[in-house]
Amino acid sequence: MTPPDPDSVRQKLLADLQTLYEAGIQAVMPDRAIFHHVRRDGNLLHIGDRTYDLSRGRNYLIAFGKAAALMAEALESLIGDALTDGLAITKYGHTGQVKLQKTRLYEAGHPVPDEAGIRATREALRLAEKARKDDTVFVLISGGGSALLISPATGLTLQDKQKTTELLLRTGASIQEINTVRKHLSRVKGGQLARAIAPAQFCSLILSDVIGDPIEFIASGPTAPDTTTFRDVWNILERYQLRSRLPVSVRTYVQEGLAGKQPETPKPGDPVLKSGQNRIVGNLAQALQAVYDRARELGYNTLILTTELEGEARELAHVYAAMTADILKRGWPVSPPACILCGGEPTVTVRGSGLGGRSQELALALLPKIAGRQVTVFGAVGTDGTDGPTDAAGAHVDDASQRRAAQMGLNWLDYLQNNDSYHFFEQTGELIKTGPTQTNVMDMHILLVNSC
Amino acid sequence: MTPPDPDSVRQKLLADLQTLYEAGIQAVMPDRAIFHHVRRDGNLLHIGDRTYDLSRGRNYLIAFGKAAALMAEALESLIGDALTDGLAITKYGHTGQVKLQKTRLYEAGHPVPDEAGIRATREALRLAEKARKDDTVFVLISGGGSALLISPATGLTLQDKQKTTELLLRTGASIQEINTVRKHLSRVKGGQLARAIAPAQFCSLILSDVIGDPIEFIASGPTAPDTTTFRDVWNILERYQLRSRLPVSVRTYVQEGLAGKQPETPKPGDPVLKSGQNRIVGNLAQALQAVYDRARELGYNTLILTTELEGEARELAHVYAAMTADILKRGWPVSPPACILCGGEPTVTVRGSGLGGRSQELALALLPKIAGRQVTVFGAVGTDGTDGPTDAAGAHVDDASQRRAAQMGLNWLDYLQNNDSYHFFEQTGELIKTGPTQTNVMDMHILLVNSC
Repeated sequence: MTPPDPDSVRQKLLADLQTLYEAGIQAVMPDRAIFHHVRRDGNLLHIGDRTYDLSRGRNYLIAFGKAAALMAEALESLIGDALTDGLAITKYGHTGQVKLQKTRLYEAGHPVPDEAGIRATREALRLAEKARKDDTVFVLISGGGSALLISPATGLTLQDKQKTTELLLRTGASIQEINTVRKHLSRVKGGQLARAIAPAQFCSLILSDVIGDPIEFIASGPTAPDTTTFRDVWNILERYQLRSRLPVSVRTYVQEGLAGKQPETPKPGDPVLKSGQNRIVGNLAQALQAVYDRARELGYNTLILTTELEGEARELAHVYAAMTADILKRGWPVSPPACILCGGEPTVTVRGSGLGGRSQELALALLPKIAGRQVTVFGAVGTDGTDGPTDAAGAHVDDASQRRAAQMGLNWLDYLQNNDSYHFFEQTGELIKTGPTQTNVMDMHILLVNSC
Repeated sequence: MTPPDPDSVRQKLLADLQTLYEAGIQAVMPDRAIFHHVRRDGNLLHIGDRTYDLSRGRNYLIAFGKAAALMAEALESLIGDALTDGLAITKYGHTGQVKLQKTRLYEAGHPVPDEAGIRATREALRLAEKARKDDTVFVLISGGGSALLISPATGLTLQDKQKTTELLLRTGASIQEINTVRKHLSRVKGGQLARAIAPAQFCSLILSDVIGDPIEFIASGPTAPDTTTFRDVWNILERYQLRSRLPVSVRTYVQEGLAGKQPETPKPGDPVLKSGQNRIVGNLAQALQAVYDRARELGYNTLILTTELEGEARELAHVYAAMTADILKRGWPVSPPACILCGGEPTVTVRGSGLGGRSQELALALLPKIAGRQVTVFGAVGTDGTDGPTDAAGAHVDDASQRRAAQMGLNWLDYLQNNDSYHFFEQTGELIKTGPTQTNVMDMHILLVNSC
């Protein structure tokens, strides 16, 4: 028996890497997510521990987000015969090849909302208000929904809201604070879509693109209870000394809200929320569970560390490098052949002028740290198929990447310092390209280590 | 059955935390490390797979580093009767309560070397050179040894070396590059103590305070082969344009080295290294293994992630926070009651003017991220009992820390931004104080999570 040579082991690991991230993405495709959680039985529809009688009243569908088209198609295929009307709002170019029978498909602006989004949301509210007691509105929510389901509160314009958000961003307000304000300047966010749907019941099926799957944050929680108030908004505006710098219409609106003259968002226990359910049908945990199962089939000692990873991408490289070392030396946290899985949404502090994304930057920062180790392969992939403003989903590196790059005259450090991971990996051929996947549950990190 | 209340569970976890880090430190106390790896059997001494016949020739002891006194005492207790002479150099105030029979104990400057170190090292070299064929020199190495065993090469002064190191530090040279230069300006570093000991054989017992236990880096590897050369030194000096700015004596010495007129450090395979062994008797892995064993006894589902953690301390907090969430939600990477163990040597980029250390800063950054979770306790502890320039070994935080701090009017963010973790935890009473432990294998991180 000759021992396997490193090159062939590395090729095997690289092939496994692709198998694994594809298994993860497939597990959270919008249609599969819905089929996984919804079961039709005659006129009954089982979702979680709730059962919907499709013959009781009329059934409507409202979908929004980057996966809206595919989610709508999946639900139509299940209950299209029982559907009265439907409407889906997605990002320009995200309609895919779907065939919809009863659902009107709208395209609108994302991440910057536009008038097309406002018009489509007006239609959605009209549909919601058509629904009566005994009717059911199925709400299909996915990432990007916050910009696509957009309806400024009475008397406000899209520009008023955008100006306010910009001012908050510049002061360094937290994302929670910004969301608190935005929910209160909207007619649909923060549970207000549920109010429009009442007295009909709603059933929201949610594809989560937010760390920890908080239903009040995904797409700004249009059918979730909101715990924040106009008082909180007023305090935030004071904290950042924005009261006098806001558009007059916004200040007036918030003051009216404080005085009880504008509608507060529905709070936990509000009757408009009581009959509804918010159900996560796809998230990063589901994707990583699928990767885990596949990795075990492939013979890896597999461990899922977490689905909620945040922090500066290049710093997280230290953690993967450290584990690589101990996997080989001590079998900590698992023995080779090892597969360590992680996911989340790291950040990149941009200092350079290059092109890249958080997954590519993480891979580039790890490249020197695993160089020359026993056979190690790492891949970081955005499940939506897009990493930063690039056409790549992420990148992979291995223990020989630094050597190969050096032979090409590429210095990883120069590219890292310039936040230019895309142009580095474009040359080394280590970009991961999946094309847009029509789903989004954040990023997966896959570390494969073998002794050889 | 009433469920246990969070406060009592938290108290239990905090008590366990202390049990656990103490178990870790105890496992790598210098005496225990030596007793664990050395076995006396009549005139025979078994160390690893090597056996030393104490009656063959004379036996000497040379110890240096912060644990030198305790290591010397432990070896004396094993082979004191067979010892001819011994010498130990430790940091001022690090002599502990040891009783030495045949070993002369010297104290010297650390981290900045001084003349006392130079004098003691001269004695050490005299002792090394006394040793003949058939003699054995036991070399006891611990962290800090690089400053304590200090002997500038022929014609150089301590000031010459310090000036050179300062110049390199200011140019941004890597620690590897700095070490390459320092080894070549020394009479003992980079395997040169082994040369002084030859033709006697050496047996080095090493307490590792360096990530990955590389024997060539611990205390600058005085009995380890060195792969770097005067040519490398010359190139480094050119890279940072230091050739003309160096002390003349240093430049002359390096040029003579290049010309073969000064001794090159022993390379792998050098005869002076052949009969010796370098054995790690204590390291972070040993400490974490002991914590692991104890945590299992206490009933925790326990996982050691890695012993080689580096990176910015506050960024690593993201990783622990992320795991906390998934432990509770999904039992990833392990189910509650969970104990996650990690170790290494994170760094802190100092931007503020406060007082703290890497372990305290990591704990402070984690504090808001675990606030209000189910019962969670985290501790970060320097095994030497010292975290940064403070009298604390580290700090602990739990899910109620933020609430308690807020009640005291303390804002964690202010303290974090000012790198002032010590003064924060001093007020909250969450400093971990062990006093100097007389050992050092870097830091341990212990995360305990329970459902409640």
